[in-house]
Amino acid sequence: MTEFRSVVAETGQPHGESLHVDGPAEVAQACAKADAAFDAYRATAREERAGFLERIAEEILAIGDSLIEAAMAESGLPRARLEGERGRTVGQLRMFADVVRKGQWQQLRIDPAMPERQPLPRPDLRLRMIPVGPVAVFGASNFPLAFSTAGGDTASALAAGCPVVVKGHPAHPITGGLVAQAITRAVAACGLPEGVFQHLVGPSNDLGSALVSDPRIMAVGFTGSRGGGLALSRIAQARDVPIPVYAEMSSINPVLLLPEALKARGEALGSAFVGSLTMGAGQFCTNPGLILAIEGEGLDAFVSAATGSVSQAKPQTMLTAGIRDAYAKGVEALSGCPGVETLARGEEGDRTHGGAVLFQTSGEAFLANKAMGHEVFGASSIVVRCKDEAELARVLAGLEGQLTATLHMDAADESLASRLLPVLERKVGRILANGWPTGVEVCHAMVHGGPFPATSDPRTTSVGSLAIDRFLRPVSYQNLAQDVLPEELRDSAIGDGAPRLIDGTLKLG
Amino acid sequence: MTEFRSVVAETGQPHGESLHVDGPAEVAQACAKADAAFDAYRATAREERAGFLERIAEEILAIGDSLIEAAMAESGLPRARLEGERGRTVGQLRMFADVVRKGQWQQLRIDPAMPERQPLPRPDLRLRMIPVGPVAVFGASNFPLAFSTAGGDTASALAAGCPVVVKGHPAHPITGGLVAQAITRAVAACGLPEGVFQHLVGPSNDLGSALVSDPRIMAVGFTGSRGGGLALSRIAQARDVPIPVYAEMSSINPVLLLPEALKARGEALGSAFVGSLTMGAGQFCTNPGLILAIEGEGLDAFVSAATGSVSQAKPQTMLTAGIRDAYAKGVEALSGCPGVETLARGEEGDRTHGGAVLFQTSGEAFLANKAMGHEVFGASSIVVRCKDEAELARVLAGLEGQLTATLHMDAADESLASRLLPVLERKVGRILANGWPTGVEVCHAMVHGGPFPATSDPRTTSVGSLAIDRFLRPVSYQNLAQDVLPEELRDSAIGDGAPRLIDGTLKLG
Repeated sequence: MTEFRSVVAETGQPHGESLHVDGPAEVAQACAKADAAFDAYRATAREERAGFLERIAEEILAIGDSLIEAAMAESGLPRARLEGERGRTVGQLRMFADVVRKGQWQQLRIDPAMPERQPLPRPDLRLRMIPVGPVAVFGASNFPLAFSTAGGDTASALAAGCPVVVKGHPAHPITGGLVAQAITRAVAACGLPEGVFQHLVGPSNDLGSALVSDPRIMAVGFTGSRGGGLALSRIAQARDVPIPVYAEMSSINPVLLLPEALKARGEALGSAFVGSLTMGAGQFCTNPGLILAIEGEGLDAFVSAATGSVSQAKPQTMLTAGIRDAYAKGVEALSGCPGVETLARGEEGDRTHGGAVLFQTSGEAFLANKAMGHEVFGASSIVVRCKDEAELARVLAGLEGQLTATLHMDAADESLASRLLPVLERKVGRILANGWPTGVEVCHAMVHGGPFPATSDPRTTSVGSLAIDRFLRPVSYQNLAQDVLPEELRDSAIGDGAPRLIDGTLKLG
Repeated sequence: MTEFRSVVAETGQPHGESLHVDGPAEVAQACAKADAAFDAYRATAREERAGFLERIAEEILAIGDSLIEAAMAESGLPRARLEGERGRTVGQLRMFADVVRKGQWQQLRIDPAMPERQPLPRPDLRLRMIPVGPVAVFGASNFPLAFSTAGGDTASALAAGCPVVVKGHPAHPITGGLVAQAITRAVAACGLPEGVFQHLVGPSNDLGSALVSDPRIMAVGFTGSRGGGLALSRIAQARDVPIPVYAEMSSINPVLLLPEALKARGEALGSAFVGSLTMGAGQFCTNPGLILAIEGEGLDAFVSAATGSVSQAKPQTMLTAGIRDAYAKGVEALSGCPGVETLARGEEGDRTHGGAVLFQTSGEAFLANKAMGHEVFGASSIVVRCKDEAELARVLAGLEGQLTATLHMDAADESLASRLLPVLERKVGRILANGWPTGVEVCHAMVHGGPFPATSDPRTTSVGSLAIDRFLRPVSYQNLAQDVLPEELRDSAIGDGAPRLIDGTLKLG
């Protein structure tokens, strides 16, 4: 296949012009250009690199409404959501500009020489983080802007000083193309080499495999299915030089309803939960797919309210017909598990629309069947009724790694929450109270990550400023002359605004 | 086999009592205890954990001379070297105590709530690093103290809050046992659970495989051969939950003799080089196994002096007969490569002693044969004579990842050094000038790491305070009540001495 077409999510019909399918030749060329651009790009000063990120933000806004319209057609997501997502995308680029300027990411360290030290003198040692090299970024279907072409992976890799080759998601090639053009304009406007950013697109998985296999690619950012993330990780491990894959894969995001909160507002929690469950047709990595609570009247009220809300839920356009199919199969599998009761199904969808579904089961049944813990991507959730705190703790301990865990709690639940916290910390990347896991703030203290299989690498996050660390590695310089040292490690750079650890003591810029 | 004996390196003869061989049952028991100890250990306050590390240092010193004597017998290394290594081991534990106290490793971040923000309020988000869980540490044969039972991996993992299960190196079981007893005394003296530190030993690789396979182990530290490191990485990747393996594996540590330095002091450099090459029978990860220079009189003088010094070198006891065998085979393979000339062989060793060897070849021949770039663990090195700067650059670009690169240079070499620096940064973890790569300072700005296959993970270091980051991962807390938050993230903890990133601005403690 040499050409393919974009598909309207709502109708499943192709639209727009035929698009070129990138193949192995384009991958090799893009990686060669990225590699050639690496040294020039990583040598940019902090201010220059920050200005480039800000320019990308401006260029994306300058596309105007045609970007929103393209994304609406290709994803089926509503206007307000996509306008918000554009704001998030632009805000994320600006946050990384600020991070780049402040310079803490460089992790500068200086251990001055000690020529008189006994029994041996200490040499002068200095350390900085350098970017790892060209990075492959995989666009995600469910966030055509904020986790795609100019999303968090791209922004953090560019902030780190890494050229980026994006493998655009084939579900939104027009949207991705518009954003790619905006970045390309920013590259040109800032006088950077073309290889700093490149965009490849095509409907086959072979494209991504070729990209991850290319020896010039030094790290990978991915958001998508568990199967996809694991496949890329295997390719990356089998290379002559293995590379890290930061894959954010699957999570069912347990929500714990603690007894006092449930007693006080079980019904209100039930309605609010369905709002989070059905948002964006449930197509969020942080969708609440698992409710855990201890039997009681409060839980009955929650279940009754949630059942009512789900019954009234309208079907929503899903991102692709393939995702709609997988959702239907996942729902079918879950409804067939022994001990699972279907509490409510929203209005039935069709081949492009998915309806909401709510299940319930006992703690015992859930413990007996690992399959109930697998992600069903879409607006499906299961309530697990535990008979007591001990059973709740066993269910938690048996869970796979997750992106988030949510506690609904009142002051009187605090001692139970404190007992559960160490267990939750070992299972998830983010613990939140009295909210819903959907809605991931882009900030400094965010962790959008977590133990396997939520991600392939729990040492990091794909959202928030800490994400820049994924694309950096340390280099140490010993007894280098001032003129040969990288500029930020010279004595003359002290006071440039970046913090430094000098002889073990942290000094602000 | 249920018992084995320690071997005297010098004679190859067994000595001491029969030692118990740990097997699968001991692995399972140790991992269960480590896991059970994890929550209590990670909850220790910074001061308590720092005191524990200092107590380990004291207990090791309290063993007295019997530790040095055991290590001398088992490793064949001389007293002064081992006394120095003990100092390094103890200093490293104290450095990590200081690091733990200062608290920067926690990477505390607070993004306060913004209830009035439009279009949506911002929740309160706080982040800290938590330890990953029980860590498996593999003792290294070549540093029976500083990279073994209480070495850098153990010290950094304990500093991070991770229980440690050491797989002691079978080449020094008596030394390892003495150190393990010292740590166990420190555990008891500090009132910590027994599972915080455990020591397993046995001559078979199955022990290490079982340890890395155990689902309770969450990370691995290893220093040793490429084959060993890759085998452990494969086991770790094949687990239901893959875990990171920090393996420091192989490096030939290129030394670049730049033209002006070579002209000024080729002869002196030749003699000094052989001092570094033969130190510790060449059994250092940072041994200078590759000399790169451009043809000329200076290089002739260097080669002539080095040849003379190597010819006079005495054979030295190697760590084990197995290492001695592998060394002989590596030397044989290198001497048989087309285009390789043997410049000098030191006095011949026997089955426990290795002699020094120096080879030379042309840039062209080296480029044509990847095998010349493989590590020969021991006092073997090869001089690569490049015909010009372009060929030197090609040789550098063709090298695999390395721990170090060394530049011998004068002021007039600075512009060449600056041109080479970006290439070197992509190849190595540490770049040093006018010294020798052996001698790795334990400090804050050290990187003892580097691109594959020098290590399995170039994002980190196994020496120096940055090594603690290997055993940490971030967790984010959203809208948690002050009483439920981890103590260091509460408002009341601000001012406790640890730095915090508050709303993106770094504040000292």
